[in-house]
Amino acid sequence: MLCTQLRHAILFALFAASPASAQTAPAPAARPESIGPKEFTIASFRTESGTVLPKAIVVYGTYGTLNAAHDNAVLLPSHYMGNYHGYEWLIGPGRALPPSQLFLIATELFGNGRSSSPSNTPEPLAGPRFPVMTIRDNVEAVHRLLTEELKITHLRAVVGFSMGAQQAFQWGVSYPDFMSRIVATSGTAKNYPHGVVRLEGQISALTADPAFNAGNYTSQPKRGLEAFGMVWAGWLYSQEWWRRELWRASRPPGTTFERVVERFRTGFMPGADANNLILQMRTWEHHDVGTTKGFNGDVEKALASIKVPLLYMPSETDLYFPVGDARYEAPFIPHVTLLPIPSLWGHTAGAASNPADAKFLNDNITKFLAGGN
Amino acid sequence: MLCTQLRHAILFALFAASPASAQTAPAPAARPESIGPKEFTIASFRTESGTVLPKAIVVYGTYGTLNAAHDNAVLLPSHYMGNYHGYEWLIGPGRALPPSQLFLIATELFGNGRSSSPSNTPEPLAGPRFPVMTIRDNVEAVHRLLTEELKITHLRAVVGFSMGAQQAFQWGVSYPDFMSRIVATSGTAKNYPHGVVRLEGQISALTADPAFNAGNYTSQPKRGLEAFGMVWAGWLYSQEWWRRELWRASRPPGTTFERVVERFRTGFMPGADANNLILQMRTWEHHDVGTTKGFNGDVEKALASIKVPLLYMPSETDLYFPVGDARYEAPFIPHVTLLPIPSLWGHTAGAASNPADAKFLNDNITKFLAGGN
Repeated sequence: MLCTQLRHAILFALFAASPASAQTAPAPAARPESIGPKEFTIASFRTESGTVLPKAIVVYGTYGTLNAAHDNAVLLPSHYMGNYHGYEWLIGPGRALPPSQLFLIATELFGNGRSSSPSNTPEPLAGPRFPVMTIRDNVEAVHRLLTEELKITHLRAVVGFSMGAQQAFQWGVSYPDFMSRIVATSGTAKNYPHGVVRLEGQISALTADPAFNAGNYTSQPKRGLEAFGMVWAGWLYSQEWWRRELWRASRPPGTTFERVVERFRTGFMPGADANNLILQMRTWEHHDVGTTKGFNGDVEKALASIKVPLLYMPSETDLYFPVGDARYEAPFIPHVTLLPIPSLWGHTAGAASNPADAKFLNDNITKFLAGGN
Repeated sequence: MLCTQLRHAILFALFAASPASAQTAPAPAARPESIGPKEFTIASFRTESGTVLPKAIVVYGTYGTLNAAHDNAVLLPSHYMGNYHGYEWLIGPGRALPPSQLFLIATELFGNGRSSSPSNTPEPLAGPRFPVMTIRDNVEAVHRLLTEELKITHLRAVVGFSMGAQQAFQWGVSYPDFMSRIVATSGTAKNYPHGVVRLEGQISALTADPAFNAGNYTSQPKRGLEAFGMVWAGWLYSQEWWRRELWRASRPPGTTFERVVERFRTGFMPGADANNLILQMRTWEHHDVGTTKGFNGDVEKALASIKVPLLYMPSETDLYFPVGDARYEAPFIPHVTLLPIPSLWGHTAGAASNPADAKFLNDNITKFLAGGN
């Protein structure tokens, strides 16, 4: 049930104007066929913070078939509160990732409620006692899934959106030879200070409700979750998206602005657990490829260590990961193609929240993976 | 005491990197001399909402002397939670508004804690029962102050920042012949839907604290106010301002990012009353010159009715009133000069929060008021 709730939540959060997968041309007949959710369990998983999880579980799904040479795999790491279905706008015949040729592994971040999370981990690490996971913790766990469970030692590509992009950059720094190419959409290699301020605002809104009770609640802190949704709403799309009422594109006729706002307040991520929401915000907040061992906190040096071609696609109107941050980072990456998505859809542009962006992403990622760009 | 607290709050909120008035060149020897706070009282003031305030008080201050012809007056209406001192970055010898030649009237918005507000109005209109005041209500009250109390029937200019700009646009629509020129910085003639979403997020954060108790609190809702400050922090400056740590410009050496963030959380507007904060957000949220009588909700038609030259100075990085909204509005205004402020200081650029913007504003406003631009 949580799965269904989360999927709805994610669809709403990212594709509030309906999933692009239903709109992209050429449109596949149906949702791409996947196998999942599957679980990979790691015993005694030591996090960067030093805490050891007795059983760390990574949930994932796959599309297509791993070939005999084990050299047709692409990794798709999930975004904030995402599940493994979050990349289906890229998957299918005529899209950038055809399962007829590729083996796609779509993994779910710790804290999403299915992979190990505050909400599903037994004491003594339940709820607010669950350790802050870093993006690197997630990359390490997935590296073990790939090498130990799936016997994959090289990827054709890592493709990530948002917190998936954070992971993609980290793969490039932690395992510079493990993949041939990297694609990062609507995400940067470091969460810069504004991102901390924004996320702290969202956490403050959630925890202003004393029902949160430092994470030791018996039922979800309803008012806090509503405030969280309402605050988040302001950051998701561009100011112009709202002025032009682009939400009309996919809402039923007669939908009012007030109804759209109310939906954010009361139904932003229905079913999501407050501690999980906060855990993943902390993961996001702390990310910095520069703090990878050997780089001494130097993000520029870490970016310079990325060996493979990287297609960097910020959204021109993203308020989370602004295009200015991407313009700052790109010159340090040796083989980079910086290609902003010309969109009014803010952060969501990088997940193809509308047909034009879906086409732009698919066209350019297809070309890039074929060796173009 | 509230006055001192509010002044501190405003200085912190808008000039967190120290008031530009202390940095601008040429710098006046001291704070410009003003007379105030003075009070103008209107009996039985009927608001747009229909509620009648038995005694509506407008607080204001003045600089310089009204000449015999009563034709050297400039109006400076206050910004969010501002007091009448909020324009001193423009006032003084060598600045755009020399009190040696002009009579400056700086008014304070209803709801700031000094003009009639939830916090200082007796029952039955105290606290959450205080009516939502519109920008037009404020303009009407100030119009009566000018005409009845000060015997001024024409202004050289109305100059406004932020909610002051909202008022300046409204003056141009409500009283198109009352002033010779209008200057609007970091503000638009209508609060577009994103502004509603952003402000609702801030209100949600404040009211997620049940100590708010629907406005009937006995002491201020501390956690809610902290969440409010933290959420607000994300919107005040540009993302790049944070990445480049421009806050260092005026913080004591050794100040950390964590300290800056903590200051927003615990000291954003110290002493401010929760109902006042919300009241002014509602005033802001509802603003639209298009809903002025005779324009039928048509903002474009209302903008087209502005007769006088208008200097429109959005900040290029304002996240509240984005430059895109100004670019949308400007073409409808017959005699407009659109001059974005090239700044990384976000919303605060329009109040000269740093020396470069202070110079840009003073230079261009001086030229404009002299008939240039």
